[in-house]
Amino acid sequence: MKKNIVIIGGGPAGIITALTAKSVNPAKSVCVVKDIGAGVIPCAIPYTVSTIDNPRLNSASDQPLINAGIEILVDKAISLDIDSATVSLASGKDLSYDRLVLATGITPALPPVPGADTAGVYTIEKSLSSISMFKEKAHSAKNIVILGGGFIGAEFAEELSKGTDATVNVVEMMPKILYTAFDDEYCDIAGEQLSNLGVNLKLGIRATAIEGNGKVEAVTLDNGETLPADLVLAGVGGRPNIEIAKSAGLKISDRGSIWVDSYMRTSAHNVFAVGDCSLKRDFFTRQEVPVWLASTATSEARIAGTNLFQIRVLRQIQGTIAAFSTKLGDVCFASAGLTCRACDREGFRHVTGFSEAPDRHPGCLPGASAMKVKLVFADRAGTLMGGQICGGTSVGELVNAIAVGIQKQLNVRELDMMQIATHPLLTSAPTVHPFIESAHMALRKLREKS
Amino acid sequence: MKKNIVIIGGGPAGIITALTAKSVNPAKSVCVVKDIGAGVIPCAIPYTVSTIDNPRLNSASDQPLINAGIEILVDKAISLDIDSATVSLASGKDLSYDRLVLATGITPALPPVPGADTAGVYTIEKSLSSISMFKEKAHSAKNIVILGGGFIGAEFAEELSKGTDATVNVVEMMPKILYTAFDDEYCDIAGEQLSNLGVNLKLGIRATAIEGNGKVEAVTLDNGETLPADLVLAGVGGRPNIEIAKSAGLKISDRGSIWVDSYMRTSAHNVFAVGDCSLKRDFFTRQEVPVWLASTATSEARIAGTNLFQIRVLRQIQGTIAAFSTKLGDVCFASAGLTCRACDREGFRHVTGFSEAPDRHPGCLPGASAMKVKLVFADRAGTLMGGQICGGTSVGELVNAIAVGIQKQLNVRELDMMQIATHPLLTSAPTVHPFIESAHMALRKLREKS
Repeated sequence: MKKNIVIIGGGPAGIITALTAKSVNPAKSVCVVKDIGAGVIPCAIPYTVSTIDNPRLNSASDQPLINAGIEILVDKAISLDIDSATVSLASGKDLSYDRLVLATGITPALPPVPGADTAGVYTIEKSLSSISMFKEKAHSAKNIVILGGGFIGAEFAEELSKGTDATVNVVEMMPKILYTAFDDEYCDIAGEQLSNLGVNLKLGIRATAIEGNGKVEAVTLDNGETLPADLVLAGVGGRPNIEIAKSAGLKISDRGSIWVDSYMRTSAHNVFAVGDCSLKRDFFTRQEVPVWLASTATSEARIAGTNLFQIRVLRQIQGTIAAFSTKLGDVCFASAGLTCRACDREGFRHVTGFSEAPDRHPGCLPGASAMKVKLVFADRAGTLMGGQICGGTSVGELVNAIAVGIQKQLNVRELDMMQIATHPLLTSAPTVHPFIESAHMALRKLREKS
Repeated sequence: MKKNIVIIGGGPAGIITALTAKSVNPAKSVCVVKDIGAGVIPCAIPYTVSTIDNPRLNSASDQPLINAGIEILVDKAISLDIDSATVSLASGKDLSYDRLVLATGITPALPPVPGADTAGVYTIEKSLSSISMFKEKAHSAKNIVILGGGFIGAEFAEELSKGTDATVNVVEMMPKILYTAFDDEYCDIAGEQLSNLGVNLKLGIRATAIEGNGKVEAVTLDNGETLPADLVLAGVGGRPNIEIAKSAGLKISDRGSIWVDSYMRTSAHNVFAVGDCSLKRDFFTRQEVPVWLASTATSEARIAGTNLFQIRVLRQIQGTIAAFSTKLGDVCFASAGLTCRACDREGFRHVTGFSEAPDRHPGCLPGASAMKVKLVFADRAGTLMGGQICGGTSVGELVNAIAVGIQKQLNVRELDMMQIATHPLLTSAPTVHPFIESAHMALRKLREKS
């Protein structure tokens, strides 16, 4: 069987590559091969534990693909032959292509400790059946240990503490939760929110083993403590799915992702890779970074989908700015670009501005939350390098103003004088809006230095 | 008495000029002259009718000025002498300056019809006493007629319909409410929201007279109708307060504002003007426009405050992008830059993209609203010229991503591939976020054209 465009993978990267490719090339045939029939919206998986009553409500629909005239094959790609431009599928079928896009994703990692394969140790699988099963197990658990205090760990900790009667422990080897995305002050607020929900945080501590006879019973820690556990959830990163690519001879990056250029082209003729399986470079250093976000993946997918047959748009992937947001307890958090900690580690001279104000004006209006914005700029030059926010739900879109600013190399002097919309019921006051005011504070520091 | 920096006006423009000037020049003395002692947060005045229980909660505090070491004089400037660099005050005092900033605001216009000076016809005054008085009158009214269906008229219509037992009519001579800020489809949704609240909209209709013997009794319309009225509120624009400037010989713009250059300098030596009293140019045409927004005013204030003694930052005012937002009924609305209607009027070739999605993913999550985004780009070139949104409260910050994009001349090809943060509880899904998707739709149209 021959298709013009074949995409391996039905996650956000695969879907958006397919839709973009079909939109740009309406006359080409597009086929998505996915190994999970009943998929889910991946980012919302934590919320199927408690907030979303029935996991089925979190199903990912095939309808947008079908509406666009894209074919879907529920099958698994098992090998790739570059010379004949053919993918072999588990069903025995062969699929040849003019352009192939690998969007094979990652497999969540098991914790690197003895006993990680004991029954009762879970990672997050992206199928409806596995999340339904996890929900059932979680609701009968008495002692839950979450390994990893990143976004996955923190979001599950909240949902499990709210939705079940279990004691919930989070074990994180870094000194704070959400440590790669935020500076200390934001990590601390996030930690407080989880503590307020009754989650026990074990910070700066490593798990040394998972104990249990046929079934998980406890997790031992490097501080000597033993946590009883009848369910362990690992949110400790993942491993890109590169088997097909590797066997076919495609270039693999130092950290084990499929190497791609600025247009998501692999080292093989007419083969692209997008999403979690492909090499991620940092926006500022171009060094390889392990950032696996649907929003980065979909951006890559749009680049690949647009440029499959010709480079139509010169705007190539600039590297990930790691833009993300979440909500823990009553507080929403968002971050994009570099933290101060990352600047220090990478050797960037930087200056920060911080500002806080209610996100309504006056602050007595319904729905008001305190909004805190920290912006990080390049020292002297003043280029926006990163931002961190906490506050009410509007944080989720304000971070996108920061994301646009980073990608458009907004300068602190421009931002200080930028026009933004404000409204009593929707935002901070125009006189104190922390997006602008934090730039002003950074500019003041720059002035005092010079 | 001599001060280094004298600012006439205590609204957002005056306050931010003072704070910025003091921040940039800590050693200089700064004095704000304001004629209203107990001021209010101007944008929130409509909400003192119903949402904010006690108008006192909407007071504008002098504390930020006091904390910064800025002097406040409650007095009224009555004349300006450029040669001696002196302002004369109503109290008889003279105040000389090194730099003067006029932030004298506007006076709301009375409706241009016979009977406009009848008792019971109100405009919005920015003092605590006048808004308290208006609230009292509104709560005893039986028939309220609002002249003007712009932001002020629409916001008061909502609050008056929610907070009083009166019948509320809005008379707007344009075919829709919010007609200068939005294209028809958004105006219609806004109109529906007000209609649902029981507001009667009289669109495409002019008031011809206000009737009443010593006290307002009715408003006659050009369609022959007569609306009974015991309270009339006029939201029909305003007149910049330029008396002092004009008498002192400063250049006045064609439409009656204080003329300023790109750094908010007037035609007089060492005299600046900011906010509603100063000339506003459109960002795209540089033509004079009557846009009076606190967010534009504060942007100008930051430019003036930074550059009073030297031009320290070359980023000058680029013209207003008219960024604003509001909420009517259950729907939030926001707009920045040019509408299609304005493009047509001004002769800009343009292409639009539209996209709609729930602002949570999946859409069953709590707090979800339908978000509709329309973006306007320059035809062929693809430069972002404007955006309109309606949806939930996050609209209030998403418009600021659009505002940053307009001011940084974001291109549709860049936006189509931009990285943005998404989260199930806070935003649309990364696969369908209308901010990106509307760019994709516009790009598709551009492709089909070429």
